[in-house]
Amino acid sequence: MERTLTPSRKRDRLTTDRAALDALLEEVLVAYVGICLPEGPLVLPVSFARDGDRVLLHGSTGSHRMRALAAGTPICLTVATVDALKVARSGFGTGMRYRSACLFGVCEVLLGEDKDRALAAYTDRYLPGRSREVRPIAAKEAAATLLLALPIDQWSMKVAGGFPDDDPDDVAGTAWAGVVPLQPVWGDPVRNPDLADGIAVPASVRALRR
Amino acid sequence: MERTLTPSRKRDRLTTDRAALDALLEEVLVAYVGICLPEGPLVLPVSFARDGDRVLLHGSTGSHRMRALAAGTPICLTVATVDALKVARSGFGTGMRYRSACLFGVCEVLLGEDKDRALAAYTDRYLPGRSREVRPIAAKEAAATLLLALPIDQWSMKVAGGFPDDDPDDVAGTAWAGVVPLQPVWGDPVRNPDLADGIAVPASVRALRR
Repeated sequence: MERTLTPSRKRDRLTTDRAALDALLEEVLVAYVGICLPEGPLVLPVSFARDGDRVLLHGSTGSHRMRALAAGTPICLTVATVDALKVARSGFGTGMRYRSACLFGVCEVLLGEDKDRALAAYTDRYLPGRSREVRPIAAKEAAATLLLALPIDQWSMKVAGGFPDDDPDDVAGTAWAGVVPLQPVWGDPVRNPDLADGIAVPASVRALRR
Repeated sequence: MERTLTPSRKRDRLTTDRAALDALLEEVLVAYVGICLPEGPLVLPVSFARDGDRVLLHGSTGSHRMRALAAGTPICLTVATVDALKVARSGFGTGMRYRSACLFGVCEVLLGEDKDRALAAYTDRYLPGRSREVRPIAAKEAAATLLLALPIDQWSMKVAGGFPDDDPDDVAGTAWAGVVPLQPVWGDPVRNPDLADGIAVPASVRALRR
């Protein structure tokens, strides 16, 4: 059955801007993968990386879930971020500035050189440049890792920006209205308890604080 | 079919600590609700509120998704937060400190006084005390809102804390290892463009910056 990519509500929030989707996929740390099991739906948070026109997922070859995805179970991969709280003059009008996207499809298992390249890209996903600061992935580590790719072709994205839009009666009242931005902020790096003296925080980690 | 609440991997990360679940449900702003449709899985980000032993969901009576939930479609509601990046001495060992939970079940539609009370609780969910700063919800607003409750009885939670645990060969090397904390931070409130002069930022909004 064809997916309907048009939600029933708030269609003015829909966007087909692929650059906006890519920005969201780069910004968000965790995706939520939904699959249908005989006993009902299951939604699992996963790390992921965008690689061109596909999303890479990464897990252990021992994971039941990864094996189900590798076997071609249809998935919905959802990402979202809250950019601000929209504080209206009424409880009813209060909401969020957010961006969200659902990607639909079936994963493909990566093998050979494609897998090796994707594994290196994965190391740099959360810490750009980290792959140059650490040893290459070992053969036994690669063998224990299942790398899957979901094509970015069936997707739907919503963006809610703006300010609360109160009724004239509420605007005439005395309640405050506005927007409170929200942002994830990296804290100061904490050294590993077993780290030898004299090993400085590397460039990749320092760059998080930009 | 009974849900299996035990994941296949990383069982040492499982917790049955209800207080930890409640803390996560209070901290996280968005939940991801998965349902199974004839055309495949669908995962949607939603706002939510914990109310005792249930999770409240809130939406428009015009929403197809809300109506599907109201009709008793089984759902999986997942919440997660990343508390830190765990930077190992290898790409393979790098991961996250996170907390995540999946709740399973069927929603019930709230009506009458139960609904009215839940609507007020919803207003205070993202801004505690806000319900005392704004007018009560209007009858037509309540009528346009569908409030659903998912019981908190079938759930599974994972907590990954700690530090990267590198192999001795890697520990003996020169790469840095440690943890970089991540936290959502509220910014300065921005006044609505249509806000009259002299209306100060209210206590509920100021409290976000704690």
